[in-house]
Amino acid sequence: MTDPRLTPLAASLPASLPATVPFTGPETLERRSGVPFRARLGANESGFGPSPRAVEAMERAARDAWMYGDPEVHELREAIAAHHGVEPEHVVVGEGIDGLLGLLVRLTVGAGTPVVTSLGGYPTFNFHVTGFGGRLLTAPYRGDASDPEALIGLAREGGARLIYLSNPDNPMGSMHGPEAIRRMIEGVPEGALLVLDEAYGELAPPGSLPEIDPADPRVIRMRTFSKAYGLAGLRVGYAIGLKALVAGFDRVRNHFGLGRVAQSGALAAVRDRDWPGEVARRVVAAREEVGRIARAAGLIPLPSATNFVTIDCGRDGAFARVVLEGLGRRGVFVRMPGVAPLDRCIRVTVGPAEALAAFAEALPGALEEARSLADGGTAAR
Amino acid sequence: MTDPRLTPLAASLPASLPATVPFTGPETLERRSGVPFRARLGANESGFGPSPRAVEAMERAARDAWMYGDPEVHELREAIAAHHGVEPEHVVVGEGIDGLLGLLVRLTVGAGTPVVTSLGGYPTFNFHVTGFGGRLLTAPYRGDASDPEALIGLAREGGARLIYLSNPDNPMGSMHGPEAIRRMIEGVPEGALLVLDEAYGELAPPGSLPEIDPADPRVIRMRTFSKAYGLAGLRVGYAIGLKALVAGFDRVRNHFGLGRVAQSGALAAVRDRDWPGEVARRVVAAREEVGRIARAAGLIPLPSATNFVTIDCGRDGAFARVVLEGLGRRGVFVRMPGVAPLDRCIRVTVGPAEALAAFAEALPGALEEARSLADGGTAAR
Repeated sequence: MTDPRLTPLAASLPASLPATVPFTGPETLERRSGVPFRARLGANESGFGPSPRAVEAMERAARDAWMYGDPEVHELREAIAAHHGVEPEHVVVGEGIDGLLGLLVRLTVGAGTPVVTSLGGYPTFNFHVTGFGGRLLTAPYRGDASDPEALIGLAREGGARLIYLSNPDNPMGSMHGPEAIRRMIEGVPEGALLVLDEAYGELAPPGSLPEIDPADPRVIRMRTFSKAYGLAGLRVGYAIGLKALVAGFDRVRNHFGLGRVAQSGALAAVRDRDWPGEVARRVVAAREEVGRIARAAGLIPLPSATNFVTIDCGRDGAFARVVLEGLGRRGVFVRMPGVAPLDRCIRVTVGPAEALAAFAEALPGALEEARSLADGGTAAR
Repeated sequence: MTDPRLTPLAASLPASLPATVPFTGPETLERRSGVPFRARLGANESGFGPSPRAVEAMERAARDAWMYGDPEVHELREAIAAHHGVEPEHVVVGEGIDGLLGLLVRLTVGAGTPVVTSLGGYPTFNFHVTGFGGRLLTAPYRGDASDPEALIGLAREGGARLIYLSNPDNPMGSMHGPEAIRRMIEGVPEGALLVLDEAYGELAPPGSLPEIDPADPRVIRMRTFSKAYGLAGLRVGYAIGLKALVAGFDRVRNHFGLGRVAQSGALAAVRDRDWPGEVARRVVAAREEVGRIARAAGLIPLPSATNFVTIDCGRDGAFARVVLEGLGRRGVFVRMPGVAPLDRCIRVTVGPAEALAAFAEALPGALEEARSLADGGTAAR
């Protein structure tokens, strides 16, 4: 019998709230297997680490951790605004892009509100949309890239309030150039907002992102310190958009949610102009190395504008999952896309040489195991 | 003209979302005045700092900040559960009590849902209730303490879904003993949940908190690392409640919201069993000192079970505000309750000797200024 005090809560859960969490953490997998990973290449974290200046700033801030962070995030917001050449009123800083997506969805999506995204796109966005009762409309990928025209078409037909696009794309690593994105923005129907998730933006080839026009009411751009800046463990992201939209976040955000240590680390990170570029150079080299490893094993690495390489395992999703699990048993944590046909791939975050060496060592065995299992399965039928 | 794309958002703001932020940060006041505070005694932070072990843990974690925190917060959750002698499934860890209050309100409050709290109680809770469209019903304080009987009575009459009580109380510092709280829990009407905010719990006199019964569906208990643990700048809090209720948080929380640095610091803090007790001893001594300073200035310090002393300035809210502003101009940041008659007081966080010395130095001048202004005002009428 359900306790009557929980009835409204329990009754509302199946209808409106997500039943599953967006991602299983590597720590959970380690606890299940009892064996720690040798190489953490699944969460698109930056194994090249944060700027040494950010590390110093966090160490200093540790002693000041008894003080709340500035609820207006003033210094960091100003520094981000200066970095992008926009006014601070166009910038909202939050608890990662995940947190900002949640707030944006809360501000714009209610029961039944149509929202457009790619089929197989970022699960955490979907988690928020479902959690606020929105209705997801999905356009399939096209040639391993999101399909801007299909997304816009769907938004027009369905009267969508939000259109989500991750560019560069997660989980496929593909990217649309500035012209394609500008065309997409031109196509945003009245009453809709394009959520341009540029978490991997600093890792894209120079000049490949469209310029930021903060006064454009049709788009909100999102960036993070979790990828190129190497600060996933701080959880700081930001969005750039219309002042009125940015002001809306103040009405719903957790004002003291960004702690002093997080603000200090991110501030030092954004002030160190060289680090993201340095990381980007290492990422390019590491992507090539992951590509070589994949090809040496007879697999096809897809082109990537991010800090991961999505690798086509050449068969179906069940096969790729066996490869992924085999890598896991060999101490290498990777992830894979969630829906067909993208799920024929595994997604391998790039990292320092030792981590890639562990991947190179583990891949052939994991593949052999998967092939023998798949062929054995066929023979037994 | 409002941009059509913002119309639904802009139109919904006045009706359902809070127009003001719950608190102005000391950093904002410093920016306005151009002068930094000498003593930060307004936010009930712990000037005695975090455990040195927590500082070490954060420093170590700074170098690992490229990794996301465990989305299940496994180790910290287990450590908290062990500390309280409950199963981990009764514990949810989140981004401060503020964050957990927001999630709880989201899970339980919709448009028009009645919610009970004290008139002049914690503004951030009200911010969340208003933000999700709930309807606040308030019971006045009684003798500078919250009024459990009135709150329960109001909940019965109004069919409230949540009843909020901060115990020990913020902003008054008063406290109800375990018997009174047990009676209150017995009185919680069917369909309602008592939100027992025990942010200052570790600072209350030993034995003054009711035992935790995690299987009681009528109450959820909230604790934080921001007060006795001295980690306000990390933003980590937790709640203990029925397993089914705790499981509900997993459907709405920002799964990667608790970063690696925050988890590491809080874990070291909860494992250092001695620190909160050590802080509590220093707080008792510092409370006595603040009391002496207040009495020496002719004011009445109220009894406190927290790390702050609420001081009756002896006149009305306008007078207390002038005292507060005078302290601010003298470099001492304090806060005050928001509604009459509580607002005849200022609220002074305790802290190390230097900070209290700054308060002792500033108070007489601020008071004299306020008295002369008030008397001059009267004479001019």
